[in-house]
Order: sequence, then structure tokens, then C-alpha cells
Amino acid sequence: MGLTPVERASHYATRSPRFAKITSKHLSYFHSVLEKPCSASKRKGKILTDTEAIAPFNVDWMRQVQGATPAVLMPTCATHVSEILKYCQAEKLAVVPQSGNTSMVYGAEPVHDELVLSTHLMNATPVVSKNTMSVEAESGVILQQCQEACAKEGLLFPLMMGSKGSSMIGGNVSTNAGGIHFARYGSMHSNVLGVEVVTAKGDILNMMSTLRKDNAGYDLKHLFIGSEGTLGVVTRAAIKLYPQPTSKQLAMFRLKDFESVLELYHLANNHLAECLSAFEVMDGESMTTSPAKEVPYERTYKNDVFCGGKDFTSAYFCVLVETHGSNEKHDFDKLSEFVEAAQAKLGDKLSGGGQYEPILSQSAAQTEQLWALREGIPVHLASGGLIYKYDVSFPIDKFYGVVEHTREILYKHHKMDPAEVIVVGYGHFGDGNVHLNVVDLTRSHGEQLDAALYPAVYEYCAAHAGSISAEHGVGMQKRDYLHLSRTSEVIRLMTDVKAMMDPNGILNPYKVLPLEQEK
Amino acid sequence: MGLTPVERASHYATRSPRFAKITSKHLSYFHSVLEKPCSASKRKGKILTDTEAIAPFNVDWMRQVQGATPAVLMPTCATHVSEILKYCQAEKLAVVPQSGNTSMVYGAEPVHDELVLSTHLMNATPVVSKNTMSVEAESGVILQQCQEACAKEGLLFPLMMGSKGSSMIGGNVSTNAGGIHFARYGSMHSNVLGVEVVTAKGDILNMMSTLRKDNAGYDLKHLFIGSEGTLGVVTRAAIKLYPQPTSKQLAMFRLKDFESVLELYHLANNHLAECLSAFEVMDGESMTTSPAKEVPYERTYKNDVFCGGKDFTSAYFCVLVETHGSNEKHDFDKLSEFVEAAQAKLGDKLSGGGQYEPILSQSAAQTEQLWALREGIPVHLASGGLIYKYDVSFPIDKFYGVVEHTREILYKHHKMDPAEVIVVGYGHFGDGNVHLNVVDLTRSHGEQLDAALYPAVYEYCAAHAGSISAEHGVGMQKRDYLHLSRTSEVIRLMTDVKAMMDPNGILNPYKVLPLEQEK
Repeated sequence: MGLTPVERASHYATRSPRFAKITSKHLSYFHSVLEKPCSASKRKGKILTDTEAIAPFNVDWMRQVQGATPAVLMPTCATHVSEILKYCQAEKLAVVPQSGNTSMVYGAEPVHDELVLSTHLMNATPVVSKNTMSVEAESGVILQQCQEACAKEGLLFPLMMGSKGSSMIGGNVSTNAGGIHFARYGSMHSNVLGVEVVTAKGDILNMMSTLRKDNAGYDLKHLFIGSEGTLGVVTRAAIKLYPQPTSKQLAMFRLKDFESVLELYHLANNHLAECLSAFEVMDGESMTTSPAKEVPYERTYKNDVFCGGKDFTSAYFCVLVETHGSNEKHDFDKLSEFVEAAQAKLGDKLSGGGQYEPILSQSAAQTEQLWALREGIPVHLASGGLIYKYDVSFPIDKFYGVVEHTREILYKHHKMDPAEVIVVGYGHFGDGNVHLNVVDLTRSHGEQLDAALYPAVYEYCAAHAGSISAEHGVGMQKRDYLHLSRTSEVIRLMTDVKAMMDPNGILNPYKVLPLEQEK
Repeated sequence: MGLTPVERASHYATRSPRFAKITSKHLSYFHSVLEKPCSASKRKGKILTDTEAIAPFNVDWMRQVQGATPAVLMPTCATHVSEILKYCQAEKLAVVPQSGNTSMVYGAEPVHDELVLSTHLMNATPVVSKNTMSVEAESGVILQQCQEACAKEGLLFPLMMGSKGSSMIGGNVSTNAGGIHFARYGSMHSNVLGVEVVTAKGDILNMMSTLRKDNAGYDLKHLFIGSEGTLGVVTRAAIKLYPQPTSKQLAMFRLKDFESVLELYHLANNHLAECLSAFEVMDGESMTTSPAKEVPYERTYKNDVFCGGKDFTSAYFCVLVETHGSNEKHDFDKLSEFVEAAQAKLGDKLSGGGQYEPILSQSAAQTEQLWALREGIPVHLASGGLIYKYDVSFPIDKFYGVVEHTREILYKHHKMDPAEVIVVGYGHFGDGNVHLNVVDLTRSHGEQLDAALYPAVYEYCAAHAGSISAEHGVGMQKRDYLHLSRTSEVIRLMTDVKAMMDPNGILNPYKVLPLEQEK
């Protein structure tokens, strides 16, 4: 869409008249709250109003949506947050909670003049317990810092993803962040043992706990995991840890077709079973913009679409298979047996046509190099042109259909040129989570792509038992497509829950669900 | 308590006048609903009103609480359930959903004249998918049948527990059932991929899905997992499966003190890591009523309480360590190394005083024999006398304190005779889940025990960061102690959620939370 970030904000939602304008009276109140040190943190909060200082809080990291908050509130503990939200609820002031500001769906930045409630100052050193195998962290702790604190004690933090250097625990929990180790270690719903949350009405819900089993009444923490800060603000969390794997192995495969990927996945489950920690798939096209030369790639479709062929399936797929284990020799044995079994079963299809043998990483440096290929994809694609990103999921046997379907739409129905617009698929195969990316290399097909892709891609998800959001959430970007993944009865209950918990709709408005009166 | 099951029901709750009495008009309506075959199941439902036929539905399996339902409704699908609940909501008829009727906390039987809504006829053959590694099962499918259907396809159903022969999927999901493999495979919150639920208002929420990642809006299925049928009736569920372990190993240890158990647990995590599937602890006393002779046991406390000693800690602990893996040789190597490391580190403490070496099971028969020791405990204790059972949880380093504390209360403060009343602890150590059992061997100390134990045990939980319910739920038994595990703000939100979803409070009344007006 050829819109400025400010226009795009308004395109998604007009400012609701239900919210009050922020006045100096309000700001004085916030000053008075934040200048008192919290009893828990012993620290004062902060308030930013300087235009330059608040600029980065007003726009998402992709610079697509820009709001106009007049102030960023920086509490240091739940008591601060509680006083702020009680006041905002009473005064009908809209608030957007923000931690690392790495949302992919416009879920964490102001759309109009909402106050920003930043978790930055809630960042005490995480407390790692070897005995309970858990970590307690405040919501402003950066993911990577948390991972490192756990690793120091020989324990593994279960979440790992590209934005680890900026995303924060509060956002990770609120958005039910996924990442590459999801299939092995599970979701935030599985790993969060306890939370401290301040509800939209300002009540502090202390549900902190490191208990593994706790069936005492409704488990309400799940309401706040994945609801993207629309029901409450997560201020602390206790998260389950795992033994730090002492052995990490990696293998890379090149396969001739998608059916072979599925077969390889089942073989991996049989042979690697409890060691399997990641199974990442990248189609041949997803690496065409990469400067890496470690793995040969070329851009051809099965039937050579460049010559008018009609089969838009990739000519090959790369697969990264990772193991996490406690015994290097055992894991290497398992991986070797797995490779042999794959060679026996898949034969010619395994080497992508006979040329490329599987690579078993021989060193930490090579492992890093191979992972860099996968992790570099989003960045290289984004720098290759105007990018459209879709984070969707399917039952794993239908993982790749959406990519082929999108190629068909663009190349066959819209007669676009595969040399100008590329359509790639990569992602977390074990979770059925495919990242479909469309890149307009010439940056000149924006309007045509908008018309062709929205809502066609999401409709394809709906028609194929998929989800319009695998791990990125809904935010503002997918709000109006929610009905494609949820029935009207389910959306009605979401709306009822929101209305009950946030009667004035002040918390993260315009996100996930439309404002009630404006439906 | 010296009450009859009917008196005990009234002791927990008087019948609320808000509910209508069931009349023949109501029964005719239910007949008319259930005689229509459902379009999904193609089968008619059933209604039982014959006194003898409904008797087993009116009492819990421990025969402690007895209600007086006049009718058991047996729908075959969600449409039936929806029509029933819409009508009950409109007519203010109280309903108790019941599946396997194996609740340990009086959560599944009528207290007064509530209608029973049984899931028995929702029991189509479970559909197992190897591709998506999941099973879809209706709520009346018996756990063991579901396990077997999955095993046939080489897949493991993650839930395993003693009541597998009678408990059903609907109840397993609604109560967030735990069991012995919880630490390895996670809770129902982790494993349920999708559910179909009929809300207390009668809305059918179709949230069935086998997607692994699905972040499209609030994940409302979690509201129904663990809320014990007070918010809705689970009619179907899709559950995540795991590769069936091709290697299962078991070792048994006898340790001299609790500190050594904790050390052994950390060693197990280091050495067995990804293979560890269960770590069960039984104190010496928990086996005193067992007829099994496989493991020598005797009944002595550390300081010989029988002679007036003051240390009420067990003289020894037995530990079962199980592995689930994909390679027999690897797992056996790991287990052997683990045993060697334990011997090196724990020395004399490992053999329970020098006499008992660790046992590594050498055959499936021996494995079964050792597991039978653990699984037989609840049965043998119950047959030994009048039994008081507590299912509580703690951070693992505090796992055993509640047992010692209870002995102190009974033997020291109440001067009871350890030869007449025994206090034992066993359970799922990795989850911090201890089953505290008090057995009155003479069946003559009931009143004294009632006074001594309630609410002392639960207050101990509250004071030591524990939960009053690890895995059994709240039901009616623990309803009035909920405040010991949940803050008033959290209970208030539970109450708000209940009121929003079930305005007349008809669904499973008197359970989990008190009826709102009667607080």
C-alpha cells in the first residue's frame, strides 16, 4: 500500500471518540505516580514527553504504522502499573503496552494518541532457580539476557527466536511467542508457570508461582498469554527451564520435492525422537536473495515456470535438522543412522537430484554458518525489495500448498513476472508454521499485489484448515480477518471477555478485536 | 467425618432455591431433544430415569457424596448438549456434567437434584492421524481406549494415570488431568490442540484443530481446561501425540534421606535429560500396607518415633526412575552411567543404609512388577483403614515437608499412636506433586483426625508456596479452601468469568466456587 506510516495507522482504525484527549492534568497525575519509588522495586518510574525521546515508541520496527503518543510512561513495578491503569480506566485514556516493540502485526505501537506504557524499567536481574528449574523475570528483561542468565546455571530457556536481542519477556508472554524450538519445548502456554498481571481495570493479579502442577481453580494466566496486551499488562513471569543440552548436532538436507520433506520429517521423528529440537524447511527460492555461498541454489521451478511451465512447486527444498541432547556420541549415532535411513528410503530425491549430499555439521562454526543461512532469510528477502510477509500455519502435510497457491494467483491469474516478483516459503515444519513471503524486487507492483494477496492468502488458510496467524498474533494487521480462523461464536466470546475485563476498551485499542461500539 | 454420603453432600452445600425442580414437562422436553438423531453422530440420545439405572451416576466412586438426580441425559453430540443447556439455562435447571465419574474431589456427581449430563454415548472411535501426530476423540472415550488407538499407530498418548480404565477424555480435559508422565509430556494445557465445547449458555464453540501453532486471538480453549465443567461441557478434543518410545527402562533406588532424593533428581536430569519420563518417590511408610515382597520395607522413622523420638522423617525413600527413548542401547548406557554417578556421589545414602543396591529392571515383567509397587499404594492404603487423601504440590525442594509436618501434628500435638494412624507421602517428584495420605488403621479416630487435619494441611500449603490441589482439581471438597492458594483478586476474576459465562449458575453448581448469591 502506497501509504505513509501515519496514513496506514488511520487506514486500519479511525480514532475513537470514546477516548479522552491527554491533558496536562493527566500528565501531572502520572508524574505523581511515577515519582514515588515502588515498594517492590525501590525505584522511581519515569515519564518521557520529549518528542525526540518518544519517537521510537511511536512507530513499529518495520516503520509501517506510526502513532502520535504524547507520553511514554515507564513504571518500575506492578503498583505503578496498577495506579496508571485505574486512572486511565476512570478517565477513559487509551493505553498501549509496549515491551521490545518487535511486533510483526502492528500490535505494540500507538495507532493514534494512546499513551505508551513501556516495560523498559521493569528489568531487574532475572532470578534463576536450579532447584525448581525455573526463572522469574520482569517484563522488561530482554529475551537474550534471560537466556544467558539461565545458561549460566546450566539451564535452557525454552524460547529462541530471531528478535532475541530486542524482544522482552513481557511481550514474549503476552503474544505467546513461538520460535524455532517450539516443537521441542512447547508454547508459552506450556512453559509459563506463573505471571503477575495488572488487569485493564488496574487490579494486580499475583499468580506468580514456580509450581509445575497447580489445579486450584480456573487457570487464568492463560487469558493473558497470547491476548496481546488487550486484557492486562504482564509485569512478571515465572518460566519453566530445561536441562541445557550438552550436545547440539545439525544436519542439512536438500530434497527434490515436498513429499520427500514430509517423509524425512517422519523418519526424523522415528530416529531422533526425543532428541529432535528443530526441523526447518526452506524452499529453493527463499535463498535466492542470500549472499551466502555455502549452499548452492538456483531459481527454477519444477516445470520451469520461466518458460511457461505450469507447476509452481519449488525444484528443491533445504531442510535443517537439529538435535538437542545430553550425550554427544549417542546423538551423533542417532543422526548418522537417520541419514542412512533417509538415503535408503529417499534415494535420489534426497540429494536434490543426485548432486548434493546431506551435510552433517562438523563444528560449532559450521553449525553457526548453516543456521545463519536460515536466520538470514527474512533479512535478505526484506532488503531485496518491497516485502509482503505472512505467518500462517497448516496441518503439516498441507504446509507448502499456500506457497504454490500464491504463485498460481500471481503468475497465472495476474500474469506477473517471476523475475520481478518472487514468492517463497520457509519455516518451522514441525509446527506446520510456514512463513510465506512475497517480494516485489522492482518495488513497482504494490497496488497490484495488494489487490491480489488480500484477502486471498487468508481465505486460502480458512479453506485448508489453517490459521491466519501461526505465531505473530493478530495485532491490527490481521484483526479484520479473524473470522477466517475463528467462528462467530468464538469471536463473540472473545468480545464478551474483553468487555468484561476492560469496560471502556482502553487497553491496546484497535488491536485483535474491533472496538465494540464500532463493530 | 461420620456422615452418610447424603449428609455429606448437604454438609458441603445446601440446595440453592435458585434452581427449579425437575418436572415431567422438563423430562418430556429432554425426551424430544434426545430422540432426534444428531446430524453429526447420526445417533439418538438416551435418557435414564429408572432408579436402579441412575444409581451409579448419583454417587462418587469413593461413595462419599450422594446426590438425588431424577434423570441422566445421554446426548450423542454437541447439538444435543446445546439444546439441553439452552433449555436448562432458560428454565434454571441445574446440571452436572459427568464422564468417567472418577473425581477425587467430589466434582462430578450431583450434590442434590441436579440433572446428570453424561458423556457416555459420545464415544465414537478416536481418529488418529500419523501425519499431524494427533488424535481426535469424543468426550465419552475411555482414556485407555484412546491410548490403545494411538499405540496401534505407533504414537504415544501423553496422559497416563491409574484411572485409565474408567476415566474419559472429556473429564481428562475438563480437569486438566496430570498423571505420571506429566513432567515429560506436559499438562492438558500443553497437549490439547483443539476442543469442541458447549458453553453453559448452550453455544457450541467449535475450536477443533490439530494445528500446533495458532495465535489467532485469545486462546479460549484454556478457559475450559481445568475449570471442571463449570463453564462449559467439552464434547470433543484434539490432542497432541508423541513418538511411541521404542525403549522403556526402569530403575529403583532406596535412599536414606530426602536430601539424597533431591540430589538424585538433579543427577537424573543431568544424565538422563531428554529420556527421563518419570521420577516417582515413595516414602518407606507408604509401602507398609503393601502385600508385595519384592522390595524389603520396614516401618521406622529416623529417630524411631515408636520409642519417643522426635524426627518424623522416614528412615528411607524409594525412587522409581523411568526413561522413554528411541534407542535401547543408548538409554541403557545413560541409565547405567546415571547409576554409577549416583553411587559415586551419594555413597552409603544410596543403598538406604548399605543394604539395598539399586535395581535396574531386566525385563518387561520386572518393570511391571516394580510399577505395580507404586501403582498399588493408593489401593493398599485405602484397604488398610479409614483414609484421608491430599493431593498437594510444592516447589520440589519442599516436597516432603508437608508429610513431616502432618506427623508432627498428629503424633506430637495430638498424641496419636503411630501404630494406629499412619502418615505417608508418595508422588510425582518432578512435578512437586506429593500425595499425602493419612490412614486410620483402627477406623476409630475419625473425629479427632477431622479436627486435626482440616484446614491444617491446606494452611501448611499456603504457608509454603504450595498448592492445595496439584492435579485433582477443586471440586466441592476444596472449594472453601481456594483462598489458601489464590488471592482474592484472582478469585474475584474467576467469579466474574463464571457469572459472565453462566448467568444462572446452572452448570456444575456448588463446585470450584461457591454460588455467587450465597457467598
